[in-house]
Amino acid sequence: MTDKTALTPKTHTTPPAKFSHGVRKGNILQVAGQVGFLPAEEGKPPTPAGPALREQTLQTLANVKAVLEEGGAGWDDAMMIRVYLTDVAHFAEFNEIYNAYFEEQGLTQPPAARTTVYVGLPAGLLVEIDALAVLG
Amino acid sequence: MTDKTALTPKTHTTPPAKFSHGVRKGNILQVAGQVGFLPAEEGKPPTPAGPALREQTLQTLANVKAVLEEGGAGWDDAMMIRVYLTDVAHFAEFNEIYNAYFEEQGLTQPPAARTTVYVGLPAGLLVEIDALAVLG
Amino acid sequence: MTDKTALTPKTHTTPPAKFSHGVRKGNILQVAGQVGFLPAEEGKPPTPAGPALREQTLQTLANVKAVLEEGGAGWDDAMMIRVYLTDVAHFAEFNEIYNAYFEEQGLTQPPAARTTVYVGLPAGLLVEIDALAVLG
Repeated sequence: MTDKTALTPKTHTTPPAKFSHGVRKGNILQVAGQVGFLPAEEGKPPTPAGPALREQTLQTLANVKAVLEEGGAGWDDAMMIRVYLTDVAHFAEFNEIYNAYFEEQGLTQPPAARTTVYVGLPAGLLVEIDALAVLG
Repeated sequence: MTDKTALTPKTHTTPPAKFSHGVRKGNILQVAGQVGFLPAEEGKPPTPAGPALREQTLQTLANVKAVLEEGGAGWDDAMMIRVYLTDVAHFAEFNEIYNAYFEEQGLTQPPAARTTVYVGLPAGLLVEIDALAVLG
Repeated sequence: MTDKTALTPKTHTTPPAKFSHGVRKGNILQVAGQVGFLPAEEGKPPTPAGPALREQTLQTLANVKAVLEEGGAGWDDAMMIRVYLTDVAHFAEFNEIYNAYFEEQGLTQPPAARTTVYVGLPAGLLVEIDALAVLG
């Protein structure tokens, strides 16, 4: 039996429930929904980067990347990125931020597929992102 | 060619459309979105457990588990659990129920990753959950 | 290392951001969220099929299928189909369209699992669909 490994970057806050920030089993790696929380500080509640969509999006992407890297993967291994926004009006700006971010990542493989939908999120959160990666 | 097997627990109502409650192909198992319907009774329409979030959530988790088990898997094989709630105000209570449920499951592997978002669901449904598992 | 291949059907409009319409790596194929855009015409903005849910749904399914086929797969390989609708009132009609469509596809394997939720989408779009397939 192949072990399932929990992926818990040091920068991450403890999950608010019994789930893992990411898991890897064999060559499959799943990143849980990440939001724009700044690196955890002991004794402080989770705080999103801010004040705007740009900061939260970049922090969210950094948080997804940290989980990928904790599992020995990177953006090049990502097959699917699921983006949850709260406001359709954010789509164009989000795409600009997303494109610029991935331009800087220096991918050597094609970018991941993506689905973007508009949902409700807890107060103060503008974006949530999860990812499925296949390694190897 | 590896066969894709439909997973149809005896307790489940017939899907309202041409999809499977779950499928397994090789070591990949996907559970369709489950809701809190009580075990199917012939001649009765699907009825959600109730009256509150707790009963519906526990029934939904039981329904997901039944599909996993129909495919020879269990919660320990789950990589990703997607949770769809209808009300942000349910998050804290949902997490309590979710945590207590998984405490009782006696997992021997790390818990699955999870994404929780708030969407619309058909009238009367408060929660929908699907899961991706990797066996072996 | 197995290459990740971008899947870009000739009929498709350029993605509005740095993502792929689909990717395949080994036996895993992920289709990005597709909407009901008609086949791309140079110099014209993306235009959804219309005027109603039926035309948009059928075009969306055709767009998902085109990506699957670009990667050497088909509906028989689909494990999970995620459906995003904008209006709970569309569920019954959507299921009729979905069922009739898959009846015509002549599947030789069980149908994919499915999750359907109700979200916001950009103006004019009534449905978005993505899919995960396992080949071989």
